Amino acid sequence: MEHLQQNFSVKYSYNVFFTSALFAKDNSLLNGFLTNAATSGALRKILFVVDQGVADAHGHLCSDISSYFQAHTAVHLVPEILLIPGGEYVKNDERYFDMILDAVNNYGIDRHSYIAAIGGGAVLDMAGYAAAVAHRGVKLIRIPTTVLSQNDSGIGVKNSINYFGKKNFLGTFAPPAAVFNDDQFLTTLTDRDWRSGISEAIKVALIKDPVFFNWIEQNAPALVSRDAAAMNYLIWRCAQLHMQHIAGADPFESGSSRPLDFGHWSAHKLEYLSGFDIRHGEAVAMGIALDTVYSCLCGRLTAADSERVVSLIQNLGFEISHGLLRISGDDSPLLQGLEEFREHLGGELTITLLNAIGEGAEVNEIDTELLKQASIELYNRQFELQQTQI
Amino acid sequence: MEHLQQNFSVKYSYNVFFTSALFAKDNSLLNGFLTNAATSGALRKILFVVDQGVADAHGHLCSDISSYFQAHTAVHLVPEILLIPGGEYVKNDERYFDMILDAVNNYGIDRHSYIAAIGGGAVLDMAGYAAAVAHRGVKLIRIPTTVLSQNDSGIGVKNSINYFGKKNFLGTFAPPAAVFNDDQFLTTLTDRDWRSGISEAIKVALIKDPVFFNWIEQNAPALVSRDAAAMNYLIWRCAQLHMQHIAGADPFESGSSRPLDFGHWSAHKLEYLSGFDIRHGEAVAMGIALDTVYSCLCGRLTAADSERVVSLIQNLGFEISHGLLRISGDDSPLLQGLEEFREHLGGELTITLLNAIGEGAEVNEIDTELLKQASIELYNRQFELQQTQI
Repeated sequence: MEHLQQNFSVKYSYNVFFTSALFAKDNSLLNGFLTNAATSGALRKILFVVDQGVADAHGHLCSDISSYFQAHTAVHLVPEILLIPGGEYVKNDERYFDMILDAVNNYGIDRHSYIAAIGGGAVLDMAGYAAAVAHRGVKLIRIPTTVLSQNDSGIGVKNSINYFGKKNFLGTFAPPAAVFNDDQFLTTLTDRDWRSGISEAIKVALIKDPVFFNWIEQNAPALVSRDAAAMNYLIWRCAQLHMQHIAGADPFESGSSRPLDFGHWSAHKLEYLSGFDIRHGEAVAMGIALDTVYSCLCGRLTAADSERVVSLIQNLGFEISHGLLRISGDDSPLLQGLEEFREHLGGELTITLLNAIGEGAEVNEIDTELLKQASIELYNRQFELQQTQI
Repeated sequence: MEHLQQNFSVKYSYNVFFTSALFAKDNSLLNGFLTNAATSGALRKILFVVDQGVADAHGHLCSDISSYFQAHTAVHLVPEILLIPGGEYVKNDERYFDMILDAVNNYGIDRHSYIAAIGGGAVLDMAGYAAAVAHRGVKLIRIPTTVLSQNDSGIGVKNSINYFGKKNFLGTFAPPAAVFNDDQFLTTLTDRDWRSGISEAIKVALIKDPVFFNWIEQNAPALVSRDAAAMNYLIWRCAQLHMQHIAGADPFESGSSRPLDFGHWSAHKLEYLSGFDIRHGEAVAMGIALDTVYSCLCGRLTAADSERVVSLIQNLGFEISHGLLRISGDDSPLLQGLEEFREHLGGELTITLLNAIGEGAEVNEIDTELLKQASIELYNRQFELQQTQI
């Protein structure tokens, strides 16, 4: 009997909105979105999940949300707002995932209703995973509160929690219903968190857009001095480049190619080895420096361009190396990380390097001698920098 | 700042294959599929999850699997075959979900590798959910072993487990990599399980294909006498109609319309009230009879066509009613079930009725007086039938 062939496409569509003070009563953006998204007849609810750290830094947030949905009635606000810790911790302990599922069950949140998550990347990842699997997918609204989540993780299609102590072991690809980037949340970030998210913009500029790289170079002083307009543009353009990449290639990553992971293979290992003391964005900055200098040493990138990249990273206040990134022998953690990354990809290594500023290139082999040379060069440069600062 | 708009489509494609003795050494179908699906460079593994009841009924199954992958080497067989109980129980107890995740972790199953699940709908649902969320989606091969899973649940795009005592509370939409329908598994089914799956074929014929309904009528005696060729065609055509519907409309059910749920609203309630003593297919047969007679009473369907449907259901050996389906007053379980179904759909009821054999029609209101009349008519008919049998 002949086999049956199944073929279909599923269309996904969502907007990333930019605003200030999303829950100000006279800001109709969110309610307008919820009104336009209405499907006939259904009673729709919205359940808020809020990062405790964000609620602490913005004392009126929860009462603002309540007031907002008294004034705007496109959907019915679930009166209990779930407060959960921020940071990677919330992805490690399944109790927070269960807390959201409990609320979905108790408050009758169905597939016409919304979970709105406010927080950094970890909170959005965890809440997004709960939303994706509850009833095979409750609608998710992401309200990212950090530079990193506004320009990268929060505007994409992934969610996850950790399991067996392994990062992102469980998760799905599930596009959000909408994303709202509110620049007021950025005002209370520490300098460290403000800076951290910039490295993803450098990354995507380096592999996709030389004009944007020039812009970051020119605006580095404004970014360091926490100029809001400069940061808003950086986030907007970085988010746009990420979204274009996701839409254009392989949104749900069925293949092995992951050019957006430029600079990330060593960063993942470094984050883990530091017990997550080093922020993702800080590790990515060092990972970019490493793969840039390596690209230069193997003859792909000019020395002048390599210097521009490393200088920019330093000018923004990032460190460019770390003791854990210095390759001393064959059993260096970094070389182990390379091997683990190869296994993670199913046996074939795929790493993005630079042919030029604005042009990435994938390779399947790494010359460990040149990698060692790059790591030592950066380590020595970072080390001398620290000496001059003392 | 202008908002960013994200739009993309994801293509899904898979085949449903029909075979006998999938793991016979000279059957190259599975190995051929695995060879063709190869992506360069990656070391691929396959982890088997097998319904204990199927392994018991087919004593050589596990050793056949081992022998098959000694002879055929497109992928590397994980030596441990996970045996889990069949039936709804496996979706209620999270330990079986965890057992699969443990194996994914321990044996290094990545997104290039496969989980192959052999069993009835419950085992496929649970294993499919584990596969869908592990690493954001390990490839799933479904090998359904019942009529119901070969012609309906196993060939579609859903997976799930139960949570908070609620059926399918957690799950995703995740198309399989492939489905292999092996008719040898059907030979050991009880008569009750053999019959049960036929009701989904009646259902899809009634809403989609009058010619297929005629075929089922003509082949009812062959189906009752367990004619393999008749059953193979019934499964093939039923699977094809389900797959065409999924591809054509709204594969991941973003809207409220669910015409494939014809006859199901009362069936879900009946299964639950009976503590799952009544099989899904048996409950669906009664649900089809109820919505057919109701369609006739409200003037949509001719009395002659209604009689053809009810007679066919009886001729196949199904019961057409049950004490729990008889509406006696306003607090009847069936009317409660209708209200729960309305809530489940988010406030607006959408139920499929019949305008003719082969033509479904959606309605948003049910006349409870006519529903009561239909339920009593069927109950009395079933009751008299039992009396004449004594």
